Amino acid sequence: MSNLVPPHGGGPLKPLLLAANDRQEALARAATLRQVPLSSRELSDLFMFGMGAYTPLDGFMGEADWRGACVDMKLSNGLFWPIPITLSCARNAADSIALDDEVALTDEEGTIVGILRVTEKYEIDRTLECEHIYRTTDGKHPGVQKVMEQGDINLAGPITVLSEGHYPETYKGLYFRPAETRAMFEKRGWSKVAAFQTRNPMHRSHEHLAKIAIEIGDGVLIHQVLGALKPGDIPADVRVKAIDTLVENYFVEGTAVQAGYPIEMRYAGPREALLHALFRQNFGCSHLVVGRDHAGVGDYYGPFDAHHIFDTLDDDSLVIQPLKIDITFYCQKCDGMATGKTCPHGEEDRLNISGTRLREMFANHETVPAAFSRPEVVKVLQAYYDSLG
Amino acid sequence: MSNLVPPHGGGPLKPLLLAANDRQEALARAATLRQVPLSSRELSDLFMFGMGAYTPLDGFMGEADWRGACVDMKLSNGLFWPIPITLSCARNAADSIALDDEVALTDEEGTIVGILRVTEKYEIDRTLECEHIYRTTDGKHPGVQKVMEQGDINLAGPITVLSEGHYPETYKGLYFRPAETRAMFEKRGWSKVAAFQTRNPMHRSHEHLAKIAIEIGDGVLIHQVLGALKPGDIPADVRVKAIDTLVENYFVEGTAVQAGYPIEMRYAGPREALLHALFRQNFGCSHLVVGRDHAGVGDYYGPFDAHHIFDTLDDDSLVIQPLKIDITFYCQKCDGMATGKTCPHGEEDRLNISGTRLREMFANHETVPAAFSRPEVVKVLQAYYDSLG
Repeated sequence: MSNLVPPHGGGPLKPLLLAANDRQEALARAATLRQVPLSSRELSDLFMFGMGAYTPLDGFMGEADWRGACVDMKLSNGLFWPIPITLSCARNAADSIALDDEVALTDEEGTIVGILRVTEKYEIDRTLECEHIYRTTDGKHPGVQKVMEQGDINLAGPITVLSEGHYPETYKGLYFRPAETRAMFEKRGWSKVAAFQTRNPMHRSHEHLAKIAIEIGDGVLIHQVLGALKPGDIPADVRVKAIDTLVENYFVEGTAVQAGYPIEMRYAGPREALLHALFRQNFGCSHLVVGRDHAGVGDYYGPFDAHHIFDTLDDDSLVIQPLKIDITFYCQKCDGMATGKTCPHGEEDRLNISGTRLREMFANHETVPAAFSRPEVVKVLQAYYDSLG
Repeated sequence: MSNLVPPHGGGPLKPLLLAANDRQEALARAATLRQVPLSSRELSDLFMFGMGAYTPLDGFMGEADWRGACVDMKLSNGLFWPIPITLSCARNAADSIALDDEVALTDEEGTIVGILRVTEKYEIDRTLECEHIYRTTDGKHPGVQKVMEQGDINLAGPITVLSEGHYPETYKGLYFRPAETRAMFEKRGWSKVAAFQTRNPMHRSHEHLAKIAIEIGDGVLIHQVLGALKPGDIPADVRVKAIDTLVENYFVEGTAVQAGYPIEMRYAGPREALLHALFRQNFGCSHLVVGRDHAGVGDYYGPFDAHHIFDTLDDDSLVIQPLKIDITFYCQKCDGMATGKTCPHGEEDRLNISGTRLREMFANHETVPAAFSRPEVVKVLQAYYDSLG
């Protein structure tokens, strides 16, 4: 009997990746099918389906589920789901696909990565999706932009995933599927596990968040986004190296599990925080650290909108719980790390370095204060910035 | 509807203090009754009954409840209770008391503080009590010593409390009854409240524990023992002043409630940690911070016995949950406060000052490091030690 939280929906994990032995035959069959190219985001969702992160979904959503996810955060069967997972294609391509057809899904290089049995074709109201999911229809929002640019027709239906792309190879020792993280937690006897979501190298504020989670639970899953990020973000391999060195030097052995997962950020702020919680439950986590402006971008969301949205959910929406933490920083007067909830001192005592200023410091080889980032981490990042030339 | 945890047992709070208006008459009646003097510990328990901290008990325990609390941590009605709450008297005094008699309970100065209707007289097996509750029969253990010194016969029955002693007056603005702390929490909209038990001034390690509780909940109840302590402990008034200055200078307003309660420490380690949790539930707390060697003394208990004992309870024993925190210290390499669970560095990097060494530092006017104790707190304590002459 596992002491971990159950997968979302309460049933078993549903990884949609076909067993390796059966893949050859399926690929041969897929080669005969009409091809539908996936966008980068759709491909990342296919990989999420493949590993079981989107349990209990069987594939890309139909119209009723799309609308339910947008408007009520509920699928047509009543299950909580805060962001639609959909597949689009061009109208003329869709016209030549009949219901019940199987189509081959391909990545950006044309490689077949999955098969979709089309059970539904429908047009969506992009404005409705963006208003509900992104709280904006501003085309400058990177998530909105992708919705606006997607094909006119959504194809829905169950999928079979035939590939995990480059991930298992590129991120060996980091690319763990939900069944694997669950096994790791169980082996350690953990039941109270917080996920710490990151798409950045971990500075001291991030370390502080992760360590609060460790204090009150069995351990933390440092869970890195390996999918596409927005321009200017630190690439995954550098980030992995920076986090490795942090964990090695500043964490007690056996308190942190590192893993990466293939999602592409939508930057949907509060709604995405809910999706992050949902699939972390599939990974076996009982808590998700939700800090300031979780999954946000620009000024589209209030700094704690992603905290508040959890308070609006029905009790049975999720088993996983948010671990809401206020803005985090080093305070001179506190003589250590603190948050807005524990430090009564003023801005003048707090060390805040913006992303822009930090990049400038690296560009100029200025010393990044040890109170902001561990020297070992700074060294890794400096080498990366230097390599940009 | 309150969002706070229910009182222990699930019913309403049961403060046994008689309403002020009815006290005059009851005292007059009590003056005609045979008197039974309370020991210091028994008096502190009477005050705990009075304020409702021992909800849902009606008075001092009879033999079945005494045995159940000792052996199974359960009253005869099945309710969880980890430490017997009993009243003893000398054998010859007991001989002259008949069942169903009312007796007047008096404090050390002979003042009447309550009335007991005697429903049972019984002898206890002190060895059994000490082995179960204190895990030792060593007479040097301060809790064991009190059991060994108590009268030969226990008197049991429902009590009416007629006085709260000097507490409400001496600790105005600090002496809050469970109904009052609950009202304070509700007024602030709190539901997740951790109690931080202390019988010491708060140094940085204690501040760190309290702040972890604040990070993950709505706020912390800094809850001071106002009853008798062991020789060498800092007196309550000095401690209150030291904690006041800490909270004023280092806590965000509105995140900490300070209160004191009249229990006398038993130093029963793990069993007392359970009692501390139980009555904190009555005060409205959802969590109790349990650090290293909670309620311990000397080397009688393993440093984390008070953590482990919570794991042995049935699920329905308590609603309140322990917030178990490892040993806490300042670490040079971490450059801040840390615990055994979050700091991977060695003893040589950690600042540890024993109680003995700390008293020596105050005696010699050495500088207590700011990494160990906040300068404002040190100032209060130095003044106290100086006043000892």
